[in-house]
Amino acid sequence: MRLSRSFLPTLKENPAEAQIVSHRLMLRAGLIRQTASGIYAWLPAGLRVLRNISQIVREEQDRINAQEVLMPTLQSADLWRRSGRYDAYGPEMLRIQDRHKRELLYGPTNEEMITDLFGQSVKSYKDMPQTLYHIQWKFRDEVRPRFGVMRGREFLMKDAYSFDVDYTSAVASYRRMMLAYLRTFQRLGVQAVPMRADTGPIGGDLSHEFLILAPTGESGVFYDAALEEQDWLDTPVDTESNDALEAFFNRVTAPYAATDEMHDTQAWEAVPEDRRREGRGVEVGHIFYFGTKYTQAMGVTVSGPDGAPLHPEMGSYGIGVSRLAGAIIEASHDENGIIWPDSVAPFRAAILNLKMGDAQCDALCEELYAAAPEYFLYDDRPERAGVKFADADLMGHPWQIVVGPRGAKEGIVELKRRATGERSEVSVQDALTRVLQSDDGERAPTNGQK
Amino acid sequence: MRLSRSFLPTLKENPAEAQIVSHRLMLRAGLIRQTASGIYAWLPAGLRVLRNISQIVREEQDRINAQEVLMPTLQSADLWRRSGRYDAYGPEMLRIQDRHKRELLYGPTNEEMITDLFGQSVKSYKDMPQTLYHIQWKFRDEVRPRFGVMRGREFLMKDAYSFDVDYTSAVASYRRMMLAYLRTFQRLGVQAVPMRADTGPIGGDLSHEFLILAPTGESGVFYDAALEEQDWLDTPVDTESNDALEAFFNRVTAPYAATDEMHDTQAWEAVPEDRRREGRGVEVGHIFYFGTKYTQAMGVTVSGPDGAPLHPEMGSYGIGVSRLAGAIIEASHDENGIIWPDSVAPFRAAILNLKMGDAQCDALCEELYAAAPEYFLYDDRPERAGVKFADADLMGHPWQIVVGPRGAKEGIVELKRRATGERSEVSVQDALTRVLQSDDGERAPTNGQK
Repeated sequence: MRLSRSFLPTLKENPAEAQIVSHRLMLRAGLIRQTASGIYAWLPAGLRVLRNISQIVREEQDRINAQEVLMPTLQSADLWRRSGRYDAYGPEMLRIQDRHKRELLYGPTNEEMITDLFGQSVKSYKDMPQTLYHIQWKFRDEVRPRFGVMRGREFLMKDAYSFDVDYTSAVASYRRMMLAYLRTFQRLGVQAVPMRADTGPIGGDLSHEFLILAPTGESGVFYDAALEEQDWLDTPVDTESNDALEAFFNRVTAPYAATDEMHDTQAWEAVPEDRRREGRGVEVGHIFYFGTKYTQAMGVTVSGPDGAPLHPEMGSYGIGVSRLAGAIIEASHDENGIIWPDSVAPFRAAILNLKMGDAQCDALCEELYAAAPEYFLYDDRPERAGVKFADADLMGHPWQIVVGPRGAKEGIVELKRRATGERSEVSVQDALTRVLQSDDGERAPTNGQK
Repeated sequence: MRLSRSFLPTLKENPAEAQIVSHRLMLRAGLIRQTASGIYAWLPAGLRVLRNISQIVREEQDRINAQEVLMPTLQSADLWRRSGRYDAYGPEMLRIQDRHKRELLYGPTNEEMITDLFGQSVKSYKDMPQTLYHIQWKFRDEVRPRFGVMRGREFLMKDAYSFDVDYTSAVASYRRMMLAYLRTFQRLGVQAVPMRADTGPIGGDLSHEFLILAPTGESGVFYDAALEEQDWLDTPVDTESNDALEAFFNRVTAPYAATDEMHDTQAWEAVPEDRRREGRGVEVGHIFYFGTKYTQAMGVTVSGPDGAPLHPEMGSYGIGVSRLAGAIIEASHDENGIIWPDSVAPFRAAILNLKMGDAQCDALCEELYAAAPEYFLYDDRPERAGVKFADADLMGHPWQIVVGPRGAKEGIVELKRRATGERSEVSVQDALTRVLQSDDGERAPTNGQK
């Protein structure tokens, strides 16, 4: 994208309304604009981030054979009456009347709808297990929306729902999803730690939150350093084998990890002191097994192996996609701006032309840009070098390719890595090779998309 | 995708509520399910169609340098008060109150919001022209929603908005968009004819609807056969040259074309008889120039070349993305089911294993499937051949690869082209080559996506 022709409005000043760093930086870097309280428009660079995150989430869901659907944003109140939640849900639910005075609501989550869709179509245990997910906008009418997209009212979420014939199979679905989440967050370039969460009346140990470590996080977290050392992309797990899934689950859950709410001082003191990690975290995902709660309430059954009807066992699994855009910035920034992980960055590199109008600089920049226009933001504005450097740091491109008149004569550019500040003088070809090959190492072809 | 593990529920019977063929076929082929009046969930195959359409729309928007953003579904009533449309808009607007009694609405369109976003960020004529678009769900509270996704209440639309400093530049933006639309519809595999539409109080000739020809269309259409003969993918137009854009526009608009509303009998009779085409059409797009209507009403200006403030000239440009899924079926089906164009089909081919459990059939099918699992739907259900043939015809895959025990012994499969019914016996390698190379010829790498 050529910056001179782009809608990428950066701000020099910190917006007064933004209290936390990700909100400030998302406004300043031109990623989002607020259109109403807790409601945001995503500008071109922000939308690229949102889509990169969505795509990684999607690929890892597809990888465990979860199937993508798309449920609507508006739901009928009647559906929620069947589960008993219409009256139970508080003022966070946005209730709506249509022109015929029928009651609708803007979906805050989709357990009822997916249970109904499943029940309409699946009649036999033979067509199970199934895990369905969608990535869709939701609405929760927060009393005091704040922190930008971290606690917005209209937000993008991936929510998945599993349907199994029995508890053993449901546990396997849960564990597969846990693996998918660990891989997803690792590919997003952030450290996310799974923490045991409250299971309420359901009981058991099948509820985990995933928290990204960030100094501004809303929860205190305590965990064993062993959890930092795992490479889930390099850990093959046979997701068709219950034994392999159990071994995996035990490896994840054996080390101590808890938010302040669930913290157990005695267990904590059993962790060797040099392995104790304390910090703060932002919740970006939650997986939860809840058995037959909805299939019973809504009267959904399938015929079981013995011919008798049974209520499928369910779990639900959320990732806050729009929240992640903010959470990643909370975890990865410095005083000059955002530091995007390679896999999430709106552009892989900025090309900074320090002397627009200089024949050699212009030619070299055009040559670079033409090599991969979809990956590059070409700063072709008639601005001073200082402005271009500052904007590139603010926007957080993983790489900057700096083209000045002295180097251009010899076909040399300066390559800067945003995360480390490391700079080197390299040939055009070397710059292209390094920028285009840096990746999260797991960019599989999109499953199912042509 | 393996059919035995997929959520692709087909129906044998015609659903009683569906009055038109696309609605019937979308329900029967397991593409959608209704969740409330005029509101649908998209099941896995339907979502693939929706995404294929969106992606072609996106690529052609990006090609003319339109920039993608994503505006929220909910808007503040105050924004619409600034343009005067909050009170003027009828009961189709879904009005909502949040917990603080603030008035919101579910956006039926986005002129106000985009004008406001543009005005916040663009201050000078030097940063223009700009064309911004998004692909987002919208809501119009139809009195009697019907015809499935063809007239739903919650629907997916691409809407673009152009901002120019003067009329000449606005006309160029309009013509670029017309080209993008002609290319888009051609890539979608349908014949869409641009028809002059009413410009209301704006006047001039810059309003065109695009209608897909289908016997069930809502409007009568009359046009010169010359419009069928154009290949817009093979027609290079220099979109930076106003002269080239004018020549292009004249070529499109010279031949007679009108809906029954705008029909002019006298002009019609001037068309040579053998070139007169009459039929019916479904509106799938509309482009419209409306000048400074919103920038004036909302007080948005930029500084012009002479330093004085000016109101940018605007146009808006819509494509009904979810409606297109239905419209394409209206235009392309037979008594057995859907006939998907290659570019839109959820799967490029179905692999029909006629004898599950036969070692050679199974091995051959697995070999085919492994070659491109993202393109194939492998029918591995323990069903009779007749059921598999009927479902494949119903779902409308462009190709069927039929694997039976006799051929499998010699590595031979039957390849059937859905659109023509043509069948041939070919080797596995030939089948793969033919299926994987058939394409709409214009599947550019996604612009801006990694």
